[in-house]
Amino acid sequence: MKAIKKRRKTFSPPALIASSFLFTIVIGTLLLKLPIATYKPISWIDALFTATSATTVTGLSVFDITATLTIFGEVVLLILIQIGGVGLMAFAVAVLIILGRKVGMTNRIFIQETFNYQSIGGTVRFVGEIVTFVIVIESIAFIALCTVWIPEFGWKQGMYYSVFHVVSAFNNAGFSLFPDNLSSFAGNPIITIILSGLFIIGGIGFIVVKDILQKRSIQQWTLHTKMMIFGTLIVNVIATLFLFILEFHNEKTIGSLSFIDKLWTSYFQAVTPRTAGFNMIIVGDMEESSLLLTLLLMFIGGGSASTASGIKLTTFMIILLATISYFRGIKEPHIFQRTIKSEVIFRSMAIGAVSSVIIFVALFLLTVTEKVPFLPLLFETVSAFATVGLSLGITGNISPAGEVILCFVMFLGRIGPLTLFFLLIHTKKESYHYSYDQVQTG
Amino acid sequence: MKAIKKRRKTFSPPALIASSFLFTIVIGTLLLKLPIATYKPISWIDALFTATSATTVTGLSVFDITATLTIFGEVVLLILIQIGGVGLMAFAVAVLIILGRKVGMTNRIFIQETFNYQSIGGTVRFVGEIVTFVIVIESIAFIALCTVWIPEFGWKQGMYYSVFHVVSAFNNAGFSLFPDNLSSFAGNPIITIILSGLFIIGGIGFIVVKDILQKRSIQQWTLHTKMMIFGTLIVNVIATLFLFILEFHNEKTIGSLSFIDKLWTSYFQAVTPRTAGFNMIIVGDMEESSLLLTLLLMFIGGGSASTASGIKLTTFMIILLATISYFRGIKEPHIFQRTIKSEVIFRSMAIGAVSSVIIFVALFLLTVTEKVPFLPLLFETVSAFATVGLSLGITGNISPAGEVILCFVMFLGRIGPLTLFFLLIHTKKESYHYSYDQVQTG
Ligand SMILES: [K+]
Ligand SMILES: [K+]
Repeated sequence: MKAIKKRRKTFSPPALIASSFLFTIVIGTLLLKLPIATYKPISWIDALFTATSATTVTGLSVFDITATLTIFGEVVLLILIQIGGVGLMAFAVAVLIILGRKVGMTNRIFIQETFNYQSIGGTVRFVGEIVTFVIVIESIAFIALCTVWIPEFGWKQGMYYSVFHVVSAFNNAGFSLFPDNLSSFAGNPIITIILSGLFIIGGIGFIVVKDILQKRSIQQWTLHTKMMIFGTLIVNVIATLFLFILEFHNEKTIGSLSFIDKLWTSYFQAVTPRTAGFNMIIVGDMEESSLLLTLLLMFIGGGSASTASGIKLTTFMIILLATISYFRGIKEPHIFQRTIKSEVIFRSMAIGAVSSVIIFVALFLLTVTEKVPFLPLLFETVSAFATVGLSLGITGNISPAGEVILCFVMFLGRIGPLTLFFLLIHTKKESYHYSYDQVQTG
Repeated sequence: MKAIKKRRKTFSPPALIASSFLFTIVIGTLLLKLPIATYKPISWIDALFTATSATTVTGLSVFDITATLTIFGEVVLLILIQIGGVGLMAFAVAVLIILGRKVGMTNRIFIQETFNYQSIGGTVRFVGEIVTFVIVIESIAFIALCTVWIPEFGWKQGMYYSVFHVVSAFNNAGFSLFPDNLSSFAGNPIITIILSGLFIIGGIGFIVVKDILQKRSIQQWTLHTKMMIFGTLIVNVIATLFLFILEFHNEKTIGSLSFIDKLWTSYFQAVTPRTAGFNMIIVGDMEESSLLLTLLLMFIGGGSASTASGIKLTTFMIILLATISYFRGIKEPHIFQRTIKSEVIFRSMAIGAVSSVIIFVALFLLTVTEKVPFLPLLFETVSAFATVGLSLGITGNISPAGEVILCFVMFLGRIGPLTLFFLLIHTKKESYHYSYDQVQTG
């Protein structure tokens, strides 16, 4: 009895996130390896890769999903996606709430202000809220998609397609049952709006959604909500315009579409890299400049404690803000009339740095294990880290060693630099203090 | 008279650095455009590119130097290199000294400790010292090179080669008069030691050299010197080992050399990316993994106020140190029993961020203007930013627009993010203070 108690004590919430994630991946691997999951046998590595890709809501795939997985296999995939997406989001927020009663005063007030939960009962209530939220959003989207796909594919197939894509989109997984992902629906307004709406809401994070639903006016929004909403708007508008201009004359992508369809498709292809990973045009056909922009968008990612990954939009915004403030000689970076604490700036920069290191190391290992040109390899690595799932088409030809490397990258990218931080932290009480010294930099 | 005084007042030292640099480039362009400078006429853009490449000590070249430039042209190139390399180094240190009497107490003490110059007389004395230092080092190296090249090429040609390569190496320019740069000397110990010695000393910075010459023991070294010396040792040893292993079986590079020659060549090719830019093997023949490593080494660069560029070794070390400290929960990052001030950490991270932005924007523009694969373009951009001069062989085929973009990148890379910071700074006295607020990141 004593031993169990001791064990529970040392099992921190972030370690719980990481290990329950690993557990889900292992179960998923076993299920996908069952004979009833696939039409033809797949290797253990391929099963591991697919389970990891689904649980981390990445969407990279080493084989053609519909040609390889049976309905059973596809349902397993869908459950892994729902657990890895919304499941982790709920878990992360619950951890925040629980930690809120253990961490310092400022964090505590922030968490209490955001969630208004101070008790275990509150945490349970919160989980109930999140489940309701998911059911409502996914149901509305399901009905909307059915209006398109039931007339097109019949009742059974149309409803199945709708369920699968609703779950895949809301959880930012990017898996699709259509050949060439969503390319055949380029320019379709309902598909574009419903699916992008789903993954944007899922990727912005429940913290933000809850804040917006609770507050009456924009002025009352928390700083986090303001940054996420305005940041998302600005990044999406800029990215859409850039892709529209860069691809305008590219006959392989949007060049031959009508002006309106060009806009719809540019919009979709501009918002999908920030973790969703669906595609309405073949990624490999895009201009190199568009690919570079897509790389940046993937790296930035979505919101904290959401179904999205990447370094997170707020992290990116704070790094930019702090850098601009530094070069303008402003000691205390501020936005929306709020000063950003230096602790938050350090955290953002550390997350940016550690993410770059993870991508660099993984890319380096892949250049050793794979014989593939540089850009597709870089694209695949960033896509895996930000759990996006866009690919220049090399996933199917990657070596087993490369698959394992990508599994690690997806896992690290999804449990996130922040969870890693919780895991590694030893709140050392430093009783000594060294004297300060100067170093020349730059 | 009053007007002149007013004008001098607003002309800050960093603006002086930037504008004298621009002035040197303009004069260089005019001189290289003279009929006596080239065997056949070159375009204005090519002249501008070559002058910029020389003045910023980059070493990228749009044409074959020996086949295009006359002796007059080559001497112009050499003078531009000496001005841009050692000249800027001296200038930057002088600016530091002058600013030392205007900036805050901590910076002031640091500068006084480092240089012991508090007066204009001191600054003049310092310039004298730096000139003596350059003459001594370059003379010793000149004699050493002559012992190899006079027997091989005769008195006149041997001495000319020696002068040119001494200046090109000490200033980290990387220009060479031999076809395929230094490939024909792969494994030659004297050439390897003398040239790498020159560019390492030049690239480590005069601050460090002076500190070592003044102090009797390692314990007395400043933190900056300790970080530069140990950092340089560690990075160079690791890079050498990696290249040695990665290229061991590559027949195109070091695969067919003897074990000892493999080591010499790996060493040279490992130390040259941190701004020198000479090459003993064809860069395009290296493994992709080696190229990725080279990209990182180029980005890191050399020492502050030296003939090297890049984000600087200390900047890189502090970013790493701060990130590791953050994830280990250490509030005050320390190294060599000294705590790094948060001001220095912010500066390092801001330099890292702004450098990444410059490279990203330039690369994006180049993907629009050029029809070249991604890796060579990325390599060229980082090489230009860190004024390294290594290339995957695309410089000669770049469009005029691309040349202008690279000129900007070389200029920004050389005058440095720090000078840019001096230029942009408005030391705003902020009388207002916003309340702090939390943001979720990562
Ligand atoms: K995804
Ligand atoms: K160089």
